[in-house]
Amino acid sequence: MNIVVASSGGPTSAINASIAGVYLEAVKHSSINKIYGAFNGIEGILENRLVDLREQLNDDGAVELLKNTPSTVLGSCRYKLPKVEDDITVYEKVVTYFKEKDIGAFFYIGGNDSMDTVCKLSRYMKENNIDIKVIGIPKTIDNDLMYTDHTPGFGSAAKYVAATISEITRDSMVYSAKSVTIVEVMGRYAGWLTASSCVLKERGESAPHLIYLPEVPFSTEKFIEDIKIKQEKHKAVIIAVSEGVKNEEGCYVAECYQSGENDAFGHKYLAGVGKMLEDLVKNEIGCKVRSIELNVMQRCSSHIASKTDIDEAEHIGSKAVLAALNGETGKMMILSRVSNNPYKVEIQTIDVDDVANHVKYFPIEWINEDKNNVKNEAINYFLPLIQGELNIKMDKGIPVHFRIKK
Amino acid sequence: MNIVVASSGGPTSAINASIAGVYLEAVKHSSINKIYGAFNGIEGILENRLVDLREQLNDDGAVELLKNTPSTVLGSCRYKLPKVEDDITVYEKVVTYFKEKDIGAFFYIGGNDSMDTVCKLSRYMKENNIDIKVIGIPKTIDNDLMYTDHTPGFGSAAKYVAATISEITRDSMVYSAKSVTIVEVMGRYAGWLTASSCVLKERGESAPHLIYLPEVPFSTEKFIEDIKIKQEKHKAVIIAVSEGVKNEEGCYVAECYQSGENDAFGHKYLAGVGKMLEDLVKNEIGCKVRSIELNVMQRCSSHIASKTDIDEAEHIGSKAVLAALNGETGKMMILSRVSNNPYKVEIQTIDVDDVANHVKYFPIEWINEDKNNVKNEAINYFLPLIQGELNIKMDKGIPVHFRIKK
Repeated sequence: MNIVVASSGGPTSAINASIAGVYLEAVKHSSINKIYGAFNGIEGILENRLVDLREQLNDDGAVELLKNTPSTVLGSCRYKLPKVEDDITVYEKVVTYFKEKDIGAFFYIGGNDSMDTVCKLSRYMKENNIDIKVIGIPKTIDNDLMYTDHTPGFGSAAKYVAATISEITRDSMVYSAKSVTIVEVMGRYAGWLTASSCVLKERGESAPHLIYLPEVPFSTEKFIEDIKIKQEKHKAVIIAVSEGVKNEEGCYVAECYQSGENDAFGHKYLAGVGKMLEDLVKNEIGCKVRSIELNVMQRCSSHIASKTDIDEAEHIGSKAVLAALNGETGKMMILSRVSNNPYKVEIQTIDVDDVANHVKYFPIEWINEDKNNVKNEAINYFLPLIQGELNIKMDKGIPVHFRIKK
Repeated sequence: MNIVVASSGGPTSAINASIAGVYLEAVKHSSINKIYGAFNGIEGILENRLVDLREQLNDDGAVELLKNTPSTVLGSCRYKLPKVEDDITVYEKVVTYFKEKDIGAFFYIGGNDSMDTVCKLSRYMKENNIDIKVIGIPKTIDNDLMYTDHTPGFGSAAKYVAATISEITRDSMVYSAKSVTIVEVMGRYAGWLTASSCVLKERGESAPHLIYLPEVPFSTEKFIEDIKIKQEKHKAVIIAVSEGVKNEEGCYVAECYQSGENDAFGHKYLAGVGKMLEDLVKNEIGCKVRSIELNVMQRCSSHIASKTDIDEAEHIGSKAVLAALNGETGKMMILSRVSNNPYKVEIQTIDVDDVANHVKYFPIEWINEDKNNVKNEAINYFLPLIQGELNIKMDKGIPVHFRIKK
């Protein structure tokens, strides 16, 4: 049989490592012939755009380079699979193409929305007695997938956020005047990535002095009060705020700065909570204030990726192949934390039905009483995930990336 | 005699290396007793805030750690020294304090504005027969100081910009739909840092497809036309634009997005040309568009600093001490490029009068005919400056920074 792997949703620094994991496991099994990658997720399957990964990855060092390359070399999509009762033709098209290509297993690397696709597709296969396994491989810098201890891609994003806020702290402390620096971190629904900046405490940093997550209602009045209190002790107050913070009424704080556009999944496009809060501080406090949006760098800065994250992303890809060979389908691979010290995880599978379209929030009990920082339990959770550095290949002073040969 | 070093202006990743250079040279000379650092530049001197660098840097590995730490451990200021005829008391205060502390030489690390201070202060010393040497050590990520081939701090910023735009390019290419990504790069007057992104060509990247510098007038109509032409060939168009681009009338393109605030030197505070152009593309072309401000990360991401830059920053600091010991004053240290292949620079001194308050622009002859990219000559200039990586000390997954002991 042949297999196909594809990726969907927002890029991370670890997706290519999962593709590498699928490849490295698949080549070990004589039952697997072609190892295909599909471009742009399910879109590429519907449009017959496959690439032979054996041809792409047979050069010396190619797999290693792939693992250290950000984003996804297979591209991505935001395609929402219709319900089977609304449009069965899409399902029939996928199956016809898979049968034509002798596909025995399909691996879909993605977040919540991609697991929805895995769920729908695997259910269709089962209900129609089609022997094509469908396995979901988690990835998201948001870390908001149910049941898995954490998601591949998250650790590298968290390491970037921590290292960068540490550097921003050095930068912010140079002037003698009081200042406020607001760092806007990705996280539409869950505050994991913003919260992860707490690891700097472990390194003796007092920053970030304030951390705001979408899990608790945000009040602009309380925000200004919090800053004034911190300014009594700290000349340069550093704040980490999640792009998804909402007020008491459940409205995004940055609402007035939004473009009003919705993506294919009905998510509101968020931008500008940092800028909005910058204006607020300027008006209410009047000190020097700067807002910094970590933007896509937090998901693509693989030059400072977490080795732990990249290794786990590879292993979970490999285990996905083993799960399919073992007859499993309609599953998502998960990381289950066995112990913190020494850090140890096991890779398991769960029914993807339980995952799709749910969100795992940052635990309320890890948020401090003042709702403006996180507790030490969070540090213990985050710290192992950002450990280790990759040996990044440089050429002419710039990191080298793997690129698909055309 | 004792000496004092201080820094002024915006942070870079290489200022601490110049402090280290001053220190490492000074400890070799028995004629130099105390090696002071002054906090917050000239402000710290006026307020008697000195620190003994021998005490701070005597731990094993402390100097190495200092070299790899971003921003400036001595802090900075934006203090503009008044003209001596307007307020002589400031000059008298500095001299009194220097004499009290037996200061024989003052090293000021900074950009244009700091060289203005070096110029005024050294002239005052000379005119009043006061034997205190004043030497300027250049630093700025803007690379816009006259006479020096380039400025310490620039190479590290350029390396960050190149590596990051390369990663952003991977990130931008994942979707099948057409998209435009606008990367806003620092550079108030000169386009050096924005232009330096051209080094990606050397690595086979087609990005950035368009580069806009403050040196040529910016037209929004031409900008939209340029994008449409690039979109014929490239699905994901990547654009590097300098924060300081101005229209035909000499007005900043982002003017309507400005806060209207001026800093102490009368510079306009710039923000938002990227955001403004993002809106423009959304309205005029209607495709997926994103703007990314590299913000302070481009000047403080020392985890991906250029070793060439950091080494040069150290050497120029050391040579500054030698210049002062040699009786020079009212000078700025400069880097003079001897050859490109192999890359070789010499460190020399020039009269600071020639430097202060002038701007070195990116050469018009290195800009292409279409005024939307740069020529290969620029690649040859930039490439040596971003070579080599530091051996960054990590602890618990995060780069370690040197911090002043209180």
